Amino acid sequence: MNHVYILSRDADDYRLILESAGLPDLVIDKELSERCEILFGAPTSIHNALHTLPNVRWVQSMWAGVEPLLDPSLRRDYVLTNARGVFGGLMTEYVLGYLLAHERKIFERAEAQKQKIWDTSLTGSLKGKTIGLLGVGSIGADVAQAAKFFGMQVRGYTRSSEASSHVDAYYHGDALLEFTHGLDYLVSILPNTKETRKIIDAKVLNSLPPHALFINVGRGSAVDEAALLSALRENRIAGAVLDVFEEEPLPKEHPFWEAPNLKMTFHTSAPSLPEDIARVFIDNYRLYIEGKPLKYVVDFARGY
Amino acid sequence: MNHVYILSRDADDYRLILESAGLPDLVIDKELSERCEILFGAPTSIHNALHTLPNVRWVQSMWAGVEPLLDPSLRRDYVLTNARGVFGGLMTEYVLGYLLAHERKIFERAEAQKQKIWDTSLTGSLKGKTIGLLGVGSIGADVAQAAKFFGMQVRGYTRSSEASSHVDAYYHGDALLEFTHGLDYLVSILPNTKETRKIIDAKVLNSLPPHALFINVGRGSAVDEAALLSALRENRIAGAVLDVFEEEPLPKEHPFWEAPNLKMTFHTSAPSLPEDIARVFIDNYRLYIEGKPLKYVVDFARGY
Repeated sequence: MNHVYILSRDADDYRLILESAGLPDLVIDKELSERCEILFGAPTSIHNALHTLPNVRWVQSMWAGVEPLLDPSLRRDYVLTNARGVFGGLMTEYVLGYLLAHERKIFERAEAQKQKIWDTSLTGSLKGKTIGLLGVGSIGADVAQAAKFFGMQVRGYTRSSEASSHVDAYYHGDALLEFTHGLDYLVSILPNTKETRKIIDAKVLNSLPPHALFINVGRGSAVDEAALLSALRENRIAGAVLDVFEEEPLPKEHPFWEAPNLKMTFHTSAPSLPEDIARVFIDNYRLYIEGKPLKYVVDFARGY
Repeated sequence: MNHVYILSRDADDYRLILESAGLPDLVIDKELSERCEILFGAPTSIHNALHTLPNVRWVQSMWAGVEPLLDPSLRRDYVLTNARGVFGGLMTEYVLGYLLAHERKIFERAEAQKQKIWDTSLTGSLKGKTIGLLGVGSIGADVAQAAKFFGMQVRGYTRSSEASSHVDAYYHGDALLEFTHGLDYLVSILPNTKETRKIIDAKVLNSLPPHALFINVGRGSAVDEAALLSALRENRIAGAVLDVFEEEPLPKEHPFWEAPNLKMTFHTSAPSLPEDIARVFIDNYRLYIEGKPLKYVVDFARGY
């Protein structure tokens, strides 16, 4: 029998879904014990439990980001898989929603309504605009496909991969400013690694035209927050939409709360919904008991 | 030579575009005179000029809606063509923008930001939702295609046509309440005709579930405004997004300005942009001089 323990505030929901899946040889432990061989949970909780569990062989993260488990003081002698392939649809809706809100002046129209002004000023359109995706994994590929659907030109910046056919032009390595130059929209979907830290800095922001919109749905660490704040305050870009931050929850005194033309959400662009995430576990568990390679294995050195 | 007169506040823009198209045998008159054989303009302006122009044989409307020219006191002994095939992209962006703003709580998140609340409440998704399109012409077909792209079920209500392959189920005639029953989103793209007048009435609104969103990008006359106001005030539907109204501009004292969960725009969902509309004229002019049937001919009796 394979003993799994579920580490999540939604553990009851996950238990029901896994039980109804009828997985062979699976025991869902009610208490955390040394018998535990498989952990399925949120990386922050797993981080705290891992040192008490010598027999863990496989950890399925419920999140895409696994930073807490990259802590160098933690063991790495197990297979870590993350949640992938489930966030693309929600992320795409988020990005397209905010791009359309920007172009179609959704906030400005609401303000005009409040003031009872019949505001017929022209709005913009996504068609013909150029979007740059910083990071093109499975989420980026989904966003790229939607961008093409709406008639955009799509650039992608990646370490080396060029897997999405919806990206019109790929950029790598030193070509970052070539990639960002003249973009209408810059969207970061980057994970938190040492290569991505503060990659969106003053140089990148200065390379964007004044009408550009920046969206961050990756990790807050990819942004030089002071540089972004200056760019917004000096109107060097048209606006920013941030779902993620260096520190979360964002401290009350952080200047982002009241920065001009900044819309923020609260790490909600693609929630880990039990019905979606359980599916990742179930598929991987079937591979696990057959002794086959698991999907979405994290490379500890690379960080994703 | 074919004498055309341009009746629009953007006449200078249109003139430049038509001149650079190098159309054969075309004279763009600088003053309105009896020589005028072709009128290209806004229906309201044409309405006022038509009785002074005995030689007009063809009128190209710059708008989709041609209500002013259906005035029974006006002549109908000319070919009237309207602007079609150019609004679908913009209308689609508008509809999807407001659907995403609704599902992704774009206004609620902005309010949370204003109050410095780290609001992680779950948002909804377009995927799996059911949208009903009241009227499926070329615009409706474009909206249907986008709805399918985002994973929605699509119902269409039409007089008789079933031309779009992106509509999953068609409804006609008496099946209106069957069509609206249980919709997540109801979108009206109906023109103003005697059949569509106040078609969205209390019965239709009562057939929608309380979480439904209603969007009107067609004509204001299709809505029973008092019934919609009651439905919103009594929370019988979740919200409405209105681009069009019975009377435009909407009078300052109209209760819509302050109605709960009502977002309004100002007949701006798909502006007639000179570069797009001139293309319709140019294409039709080429057919005109070859004596071929024009595109988008309006049936005066039907009204569109």
